[in-house]
Amino acid sequence: MNDNTFEKSRLTLLGLGVMGTALARAWLAAGHPLTVWNRTAGRADPLAAEGAMVAGTAAEAVAASDLVVICLLDDASVGEALADADLTGKDLVNLTTGTPAQARARAEWAEKRGARLLDGGIMAVPPMIGAPGSGGYVFYSGSRALFDAHHDTLAVPAGTTYVGEDPGFAALHDVALLSAMTGMFAGISHAFALVRKEDVALKDFAPLLVGWLTAMAPYAYGITGHLESGDYTEGVVSNLAMMVEGNATLLRTAEEQGVSAELLTPFTALMERRLADGHGDEDTTGVIDLLTR
Amino acid sequence: MNDNTFEKSRLTLLGLGVMGTALARAWLAAGHPLTVWNRTAGRADPLAAEGAMVAGTAAEAVAASDLVVICLLDDASVGEALADADLTGKDLVNLTTGTPAQARARAEWAEKRGARLLDGGIMAVPPMIGAPGSGGYVFYSGSRALFDAHHDTLAVPAGTTYVGEDPGFAALHDVALLSAMTGMFAGISHAFALVRKEDVALKDFAPLLVGWLTAMAPYAYGITGHLESGDYTEGVVSNLAMMVEGNATLLRTAEEQGVSAELLTPFTALMERRLADGHGDEDTTGVIDLLTR
Repeated sequence: MNDNTFEKSRLTLLGLGVMGTALARAWLAAGHPLTVWNRTAGRADPLAAEGAMVAGTAAEAVAASDLVVICLLDDASVGEALADADLTGKDLVNLTTGTPAQARARAEWAEKRGARLLDGGIMAVPPMIGAPGSGGYVFYSGSRALFDAHHDTLAVPAGTTYVGEDPGFAALHDVALLSAMTGMFAGISHAFALVRKEDVALKDFAPLLVGWLTAMAPYAYGITGHLESGDYTEGVVSNLAMMVEGNATLLRTAEEQGVSAELLTPFTALMERRLADGHGDEDTTGVIDLLTR
Repeated sequence: MNDNTFEKSRLTLLGLGVMGTALARAWLAAGHPLTVWNRTAGRADPLAAEGAMVAGTAAEAVAASDLVVICLLDDASVGEALADADLTGKDLVNLTTGTPAQARARAEWAEKRGARLLDGGIMAVPPMIGAPGSGGYVFYSGSRALFDAHHDTLAVPAGTTYVGEDPGFAALHDVALLSAMTGMFAGISHAFALVRKEDVALKDFAPLLVGWLTAMAPYAYGITGHLESGDYTEGVVSNLAMMVEGNATLLRTAEEQGVSAELLTPFTALMERRLADGHGDEDTTGVIDLLTR
């Protein structure tokens, strides 16, 4: 606790999993008076030693502060934990992982209970919390006024990126980025599977792989241009016909190396469908049309 | 043509597709005496105007220089184009797209014909050729002495990265990086499909997506450590149990947004298999084991 404790906003944090504990430590380190609650009581003990007030029930924890940050297992846990709490006049910031629809429904639920709710999606793993420069940040959506009112407190554990009044947008952005990352991780896994049994030094291979993915990630800007203009042939340098041709080499190499191509084939199948539909002069943007039912 | 023309190495280039033409222009601009050949003769006309000598047959083109660069449609085209050429004493640099096995077989074929062969894999699109600072480069593998002998000429159109004596390694690296990129493009496509029907400004979304993928690409270094040590739990911050839990939110959001999850499900299925096998404390490295038959 530092000298500025009483100038910093008081807040409550519900949920002391690995992420919740990291958030709690960041606020305590910055001198915020913090009340914590966790369903399993033992998780709070180390934080109590660091200055946190520990509430016996979620309702007591909510009563302790006007600002209540929620970081529980899932959306259902939020409803259960707060069933008996008096939420009147409270500002809730829900960092619990969920879908856009869950975030929207939870914002309505909060309003009916007399509270305001800002939804958040954490783009960081726990070691990036409270570590300025780690690159971790949190998407927020919901009332801009609510975000502005608590910005200084919310900015303590990680950077903040506000993405709009729609309470579902933080989750939508969170899920979109994590989905893209899942695709990248799938590609990385396939790449390592291809080389691992060969006499290739992985410590030399990894920086080539990372450098290439970093150089190619801006492909997303081209897609943005295509989706905005509706012309998917604009500025295309490597067209679908060429990419489908190249894919044959990727699949044949997987076969040669004894590697299952199951992580590549769904995308190549969509490219082939788009090509068969007569779009060989486009790049891959049209695949996005095929994904949307 | 500049004053240094007669100091620069003479070379021959077979194949004037979009990539071959870009390569030819880079060598001509740097003052290299260049002989070109293309199966369809018209493609050479603009290059003749820029100083290239145009050969009527592939055999004549090969006879014109000791160094012969090949950039044809596929491996079969290489065999066809060079069927009647005298390759004795020639240094061949094969930039034709192919698999590692094709590169190895083509190197043996060249040796039997009295030539030496260096294989190359181009990590660039044609606009990046002859554009220093574009980030484009070419993987080379095969004889180190052969690479060193022609390095200065080969470095004219793009950067060079030598990856080993095995003639298949350039293609292996090329395909591995392109495969990883395919996974990333699949992830990017899914991400855009999720947001495109919402009131999200794509020009604001794209930099967030690119920034996140760039920040997460170094995940590959962790995988390298795991594969080298054999301990897939080392330094894991987000384990498979947590990732599989998170995937449920990704899949549920796709459903909500009316987006097919076909680009995500093969990787999530492999993570689930690995988790079911009792590896919940690892991250995704074990998926690589499942890909290798």
